[in-house]
Amino acid sequence: MKLLDVPDHARHANMRLVLPLLVWGAWRLTRAQLSVQALNCLIHQCVELGITAFDHADIYGGYTAEAQFGQALALSPGLRAQLQLFTKCGVAAVSAARPAHQVKTFNSSADHLAACMDHSLTALGTEQLDLLMLHRPDYLMDAAETAQALDRAVASGKVRAVGVSNFSPSQVLLLRQHLQTPLAVNQIEFSLGAMQALDNGVLDQCQQLGMRPMAWSPLAGGAVLGDNDLARRLNPVLTHIAQVQACPPAAVALAWLMRCPTRVVPVLGSVRIERLRDAWRATQITLSREDWYTLWAAAAGRQLP
Amino acid sequence: MKLLDVPDHARHANMRLVLPLLVWGAWRLTRAQLSVQALNCLIHQCVELGITAFDHADIYGGYTAEAQFGQALALSPGLRAQLQLFTKCGVAAVSAARPAHQVKTFNSSADHLAACMDHSLTALGTEQLDLLMLHRPDYLMDAAETAQALDRAVASGKVRAVGVSNFSPSQVLLLRQHLQTPLAVNQIEFSLGAMQALDNGVLDQCQQLGMRPMAWSPLAGGAVLGDNDLARRLNPVLTHIAQVQACPPAAVALAWLMRCPTRVVPVLGSVRIERLRDAWRATQITLSREDWYTLWAAAAGRQLP
Amino acid sequence: MKLLDVPDHARHANMRLVLPLLVWGAWRLTRAQLSVQALNCLIHQCVELGITAFDHADIYGGYTAEAQFGQALALSPGLRAQLQLFTKCGVAAVSAARPAHQVKTFNSSADHLAACMDHSLTALGTEQLDLLMLHRPDYLMDAAETAQALDRAVASGKVRAVGVSNFSPSQVLLLRQHLQTPLAVNQIEFSLGAMQALDNGVLDQCQQLGMRPMAWSPLAGGAVLGDNDLARRLNPVLTHIAQVQACPPAAVALAWLMRCPTRVVPVLGSVRIERLRDAWRATQITLSREDWYTLWAAAAGRQLP
Repeated sequence: MKLLDVPDHARHANMRLVLPLLVWGAWRLTRAQLSVQALNCLIHQCVELGITAFDHADIYGGYTAEAQFGQALALSPGLRAQLQLFTKCGVAAVSAARPAHQVKTFNSSADHLAACMDHSLTALGTEQLDLLMLHRPDYLMDAAETAQALDRAVASGKVRAVGVSNFSPSQVLLLRQHLQTPLAVNQIEFSLGAMQALDNGVLDQCQQLGMRPMAWSPLAGGAVLGDNDLARRLNPVLTHIAQVQACPPAAVALAWLMRCPTRVVPVLGSVRIERLRDAWRATQITLSREDWYTLWAAAAGRQLP
Repeated sequence: MKLLDVPDHARHANMRLVLPLLVWGAWRLTRAQLSVQALNCLIHQCVELGITAFDHADIYGGYTAEAQFGQALALSPGLRAQLQLFTKCGVAAVSAARPAHQVKTFNSSADHLAACMDHSLTALGTEQLDLLMLHRPDYLMDAAETAQALDRAVASGKVRAVGVSNFSPSQVLLLRQHLQTPLAVNQIEFSLGAMQALDNGVLDQCQQLGMRPMAWSPLAGGAVLGDNDLARRLNPVLTHIAQVQACPPAAVALAWLMRCPTRVVPVLGSVRIERLRDAWRATQITLSREDWYTLWAAAAGRQLP
Repeated sequence: MKLLDVPDHARHANMRLVLPLLVWGAWRLTRAQLSVQALNCLIHQCVELGITAFDHADIYGGYTAEAQFGQALALSPGLRAQLQLFTKCGVAAVSAARPAHQVKTFNSSADHLAACMDHSLTALGTEQLDLLMLHRPDYLMDAAETAQALDRAVASGKVRAVGVSNFSPSQVLLLRQHLQTPLAVNQIEFSLGAMQALDNGVLDQCQQLGMRPMAWSPLAGGAVLGDNDLARRLNPVLTHIAQVQACPPAAVALAWLMRCPTRVVPVLGSVRIERLRDAWRATQITLSREDWYTLWAAAAGRQLP
């Protein structure tokens, strides 16, 4: 397993999270309709490949993905210890599994977070989450209360590190002011098809505060390699670099994210091991500055000023 | 009178402002053409209702509203002591009352602010303003000079607390760096018809810095309840909640603002006591998280992501 | 030479830069095809006029403008000592003069900056730059590395002060966190034809942090005085103020920039001394607040709110 250290100033006693280069994400897991055995096999294959961190959210698969993953883990005693388990909470989705939710809300109240965390621990069959993230910024967040709930989760040993997802810089500053535990990550949308994080201050803030960005939809839901104007602009560049580097175009698109100075961690949603092997190739190449800016210009559809 | 404390870290010796839940605002006062007696009666009715804070600006009514209010106050010795008086300065409007203003400008120079403050004290017939706000961000603001003028106003006893209106987060940071006195409020446009403060960092900053937001046009100038696309989306939700809570739809729309963790203070512009009674009902209900997000989605015209 | 001090809190031992009111900029120099003698003459005329600071970038004129300027300087021993020389680096442009650059990139790596700085010192024929700026925010900037490179440049005596150009507030905060040397300037696009710096936080930040803004394209590439909608709105106001002040309309447009509380420093691109004399008149007038806001309203095409 290839590891990258977090910056020194982002560490302290309660924050010993070391993020890997790539993370597997469960948001499309239930759609794949894998058997528990097949999922157990996929987890083993991921670990062999080097993908040892698994990203969840309580709401994935209508509140069922975590439990499915937990069952697959339970088939192999000792497997949990080889993994990092991440999850998110704070969205209350309408679902048969949560009849109390009549309306979709964001909810970062202390009670909601505590209940979600316990649910996730049980569903995943673990005593500790390696990372717990707030899934969405809640307009009704009482930052002092939410921060205390997160600090308590760390103090209790139920989570090792805390982070956020889809937070703007002002939302990070607000929450952080009340937190004892440093925020380890901001998991955001970021890809060659969604580059706004380069300009809206989110990546600048991550680098400034020693937070690591994680990227969801790192291939823009496939649009980066699909049949559309963006992909047509990117294709010649991705293909050329892929040939030179002897790797798949998808790996080049992921390596573009990982080349950022903040070392963005892509979250991979595929359940096909050959796709994950393709993706893993991204960890073995480093894009030149020239390749990075050529891809930026192709994605942006314009030259640098 | 129902009061809410400001956060502890926003207090100090010079800042003893305790904001009420709702504030009455004078920006449409002169249009109503009330007699001084009728206005005196309205003030008494407000106080009985629980609305004890009155928000002004030197420019309202072409520089006449403050004096009209002051005359109405003077009819009842002892009334002033039951009220909080807020005003704003820093806009130089073109008006027969200010022949020196040939062009509309924003002006936060020390001289202008000092003159305006004295004007307002005289017009309102009081020795102290409970809150003085800069009405608009002045592109020509020398922050050190403006901050000193505000601190001096507090030190002189002429104002108890200072704030801003319509300031962006970067403008608040700039002014605040030079101020001894904490900024008590940022009075902004905020309603179900103008929700940008939720996303542009202004409300995040208020919560972070312990400033209270006040909301002008809290019903979007009536558009929230009017005959338009926004109102058509909101109407079924407002009506339903109003029925359940046994209160008027306007109260629900105000309660939506007051439910924010920063406890937004709506500024009410009506001179009709039955309207104000309707509004006051907002202080007696608390919207559920579900109701709040349902109203958000109706106003935004889209579901939560 | 008329000088303005930088704020006290922006000074320290390594930062003794005192910016003049106006700066001459070389970005259009090579297009003018001046002989070395003619350029030497122009420099002398500038100095006599009061324009004693000269702004460069390594890339201007396809990497040739600095050397041309250096040759012109060399014709008059002692001339250098009367001047301030500013330059920018960090853009790697495609040019016959830099065959290694196959693709345009932004590059703020320590190696690139050190090499550019040495190039500029040699080309300009000087032992010290008065100001070195990062030309563009580099998405791949490792802020700790870049800051160290800039601090080292100051410590070595090769530059007196450092700054940035075209940086957003979050990019400034990021770089600044790692810098020992204060950032002296942010050179941005700013004119009556490009007023976004008034609202996007850049000028607020400059005032807050004691950085001076420099304005490139201070007449919007001539559009402020040209034949277009903007110019038609501005023309009556500029003409009127110019008549009252007995100066050219261009000087009024520059004085509008210089009237900002952050004392914006326009960078003038003309090689015609009569144009520069016109511009210099801006240093001899001060726009009233009324004139400033009247020009703002004409440029914005709307009244103040």
